[in-house]
Amino acid sequence: MALIVQKYGGTSVANTERIKNVAARVARYRERGDRLVVVVSAMSGVTDNLIRLAKEIMPLPSERELDVLLATGEQTTIALTAMALHALGVPAVSLTGAQAGIVTDRVHTKAKIMNITPRQVHALLDSGHVVIVAGFQGQTQEGQITTLGRGGSDLTAIALAAALKADLCQIFTDVDGIYTADPRVVPTARKLDEVAYDELLELAGAGAKVMQLRSVEFAKKFGVVFEVRSSMNDNPGTIVKEETKSMEGVVVRGVSLDKNQAKITLIGVPDRPGVSARIFQALADAAINVDMIVQNVSHGTAHPATDLSFTVDKPDLLKARKVIEGLKAELGFSQLLADETIAKLSIVGVGMRSHSGVAAKMFTTLAREGINIEMISTSEIKITVVVNSARGEQAARAVHDAFIT
Amino acid sequence: MALIVQKYGGTSVANTERIKNVAARVARYRERGDRLVVVVSAMSGVTDNLIRLAKEIMPLPSERELDVLLATGEQTTIALTAMALHALGVPAVSLTGAQAGIVTDRVHTKAKIMNITPRQVHALLDSGHVVIVAGFQGQTQEGQITTLGRGGSDLTAIALAAALKADLCQIFTDVDGIYTADPRVVPTARKLDEVAYDELLELAGAGAKVMQLRSVEFAKKFGVVFEVRSSMNDNPGTIVKEETKSMEGVVVRGVSLDKNQAKITLIGVPDRPGVSARIFQALADAAINVDMIVQNVSHGTAHPATDLSFTVDKPDLLKARKVIEGLKAELGFSQLLADETIAKLSIVGVGMRSHSGVAAKMFTTLAREGINIEMISTSEIKITVVVNSARGEQAARAVHDAFIT
Repeated sequence: MALIVQKYGGTSVANTERIKNVAARVARYRERGDRLVVVVSAMSGVTDNLIRLAKEIMPLPSERELDVLLATGEQTTIALTAMALHALGVPAVSLTGAQAGIVTDRVHTKAKIMNITPRQVHALLDSGHVVIVAGFQGQTQEGQITTLGRGGSDLTAIALAAALKADLCQIFTDVDGIYTADPRVVPTARKLDEVAYDELLELAGAGAKVMQLRSVEFAKKFGVVFEVRSSMNDNPGTIVKEETKSMEGVVVRGVSLDKNQAKITLIGVPDRPGVSARIFQALADAAINVDMIVQNVSHGTAHPATDLSFTVDKPDLLKARKVIEGLKAELGFSQLLADETIAKLSIVGVGMRSHSGVAAKMFTTLAREGINIEMISTSEIKITVVVNSARGEQAARAVHDAFIT
Repeated sequence: MALIVQKYGGTSVANTERIKNVAARVARYRERGDRLVVVVSAMSGVTDNLIRLAKEIMPLPSERELDVLLATGEQTTIALTAMALHALGVPAVSLTGAQAGIVTDRVHTKAKIMNITPRQVHALLDSGHVVIVAGFQGQTQEGQITTLGRGGSDLTAIALAAALKADLCQIFTDVDGIYTADPRVVPTARKLDEVAYDELLELAGAGAKVMQLRSVEFAKKFGVVFEVRSSMNDNPGTIVKEETKSMEGVVVRGVSLDKNQAKITLIGVPDRPGVSARIFQALADAAINVDMIVQNVSHGTAHPATDLSFTVDKPDLLKARKVIEGLKAELGFSQLLADETIAKLSIVGVGMRSHSGVAAKMFTTLAREGINIEMISTSEIKITVVVNSARGEQAARAVHDAFIT
């Protein structure tokens, strides 16, 4: 008799028909004898609609009140899901985040879970109930309603699985699992049976949209094994867990392509201490997220200077240009080049640690396709290159098929 | 510096524009120096929509889960109302029923308020905030969400006014106050400046739709003076309070006409103990609400029999007939007559206690109009007659103008 935490996202509970489907699935697990905690999101569209109402009132509403407002979305779903289980004869009780004992810090709209005291969850499970918990929400120690921000429902499920020492945590979503690449870009992409936390973190950081980083980080920190799978069929999904010895046999677990970045290159940046700190502090102060940074060795001896390239989210490009151009006199670089037509291609795999020649193979593959590499950046288990965006998909397909069979 | 509890119903907060109007009104009171607690209902239509969703899942949803679901309606409004006050620069904080300390019994969907511990309300008022409280909801001592049933938001306001020892409780609604009669029926009807609890109770019981009985009963029990007034203008409303000496000068405070009743008459009911008990217990068991009951002295000596008339809600007529006809053999009455074409006309006033000839004047007025009286029933401060429904409006106008100038 396993204790399973399941999470269903907004599209899986988008209307009452889908909620009934979720209930039918939960009922099947329960018939097997499993004990179930079910975390649900707001029905898709509901949260956006609430935000629209708030913005009709004022453009920048209070974050405390936004949390009071948004928390109603999941509260609606838990009640409907419990009813749908009742309709199937399954005893079920809904709990808000607060009732489930999810205590957070006081940072409204992006609160962190501090601890979980699932007294009521345990009691209800012990009395034979399926427990439906509102995702994405909690309360402060003082009893104020908080929400956890993007990906919050995944976090609720993983944190509950940790607190309850669940045997399994299942994240039901609208895809079959985690793929070696985006199947819309790479036709040969296939679903992974398993992936290491670190690999998923690097893939997500490189643009793969399956899960928010913080949920994966939380799962890694507390060793919560979870499965990402579809709520539309019964196919097994992808197990996400700590890296095992056997995983090292696979050099590249996945390929990701991110076309939402733009590149800025500063030519002739004086090579003296504090210059790059000044640049990136100014960007951080403007809330501009910088992803890749590449700096080469300097040239010249009298006035040594270097070229500095970095990437930012495409929508931030204009703002980033303005910030940097405001520093031109102070920094003394000679030229700023901006390029929106780039694509960032990454390969990820814990196997890279024990395999040599991975980068060489990637670069050779691209060269054979006639694709020029504009930037390179590497981490222990990831290699990222920037190429021209017009060649991005071609590059992804070639690299994917070179490494993954 | 007065402490005022204001309540705004669903039509007053129907959309974000109206919520902004409510906030503007609250802000004006605050500028006067008043301290304010504002109770709001769900935006009109929201509760019905939630019930529709629940019924899509199952026809008779769990009442516990229905409460979890419905409580989201008022929670949405409190957050939006607090934001609307912020937009005007007024410090405001929203509280759910649970956060406001409203503790109820465990009877889901029609819970009774057991006690209120408004610790957080006091603290927020002391720190200069307007406090927005979700009407219609509370929680049990065990932390389960409950709702108070129809008219629940009025009840929240009146109970909070009692617990906070507020100087004034204002029920804002879509009418200007309580009228001497329904202005759509009686063109000479006028707004009352004041009305006694008992008068309002009798008027509401007689079909006037301004407020639910339980809120008025609660106000009477705890001596909460409240004002019913419009959220659409600044006209003073009607003050509802304990009867005063001066109120007795007015014989008839109001006239009400109820066309939603039907009459059943049983001819030749054997006049022996227990017969009427049997009839009305059978109706109560079938959850049929009986309003007026009239029984005359019996006639005949060998087998004394009487005629018994009573009224029920029109939609219950068919069910009531079936119940009574099922008892025909047992009871031995000779005939059942049902009449849907009736109207119930009542006059109400605490002044009746000290004035004689009120009934005579009412009956004379109706006779002068050529309107036949089918049933009569009286209480200490109310006289009710049943007339043919086709003559109901005419009867109401004549009686109103005979007593109220």
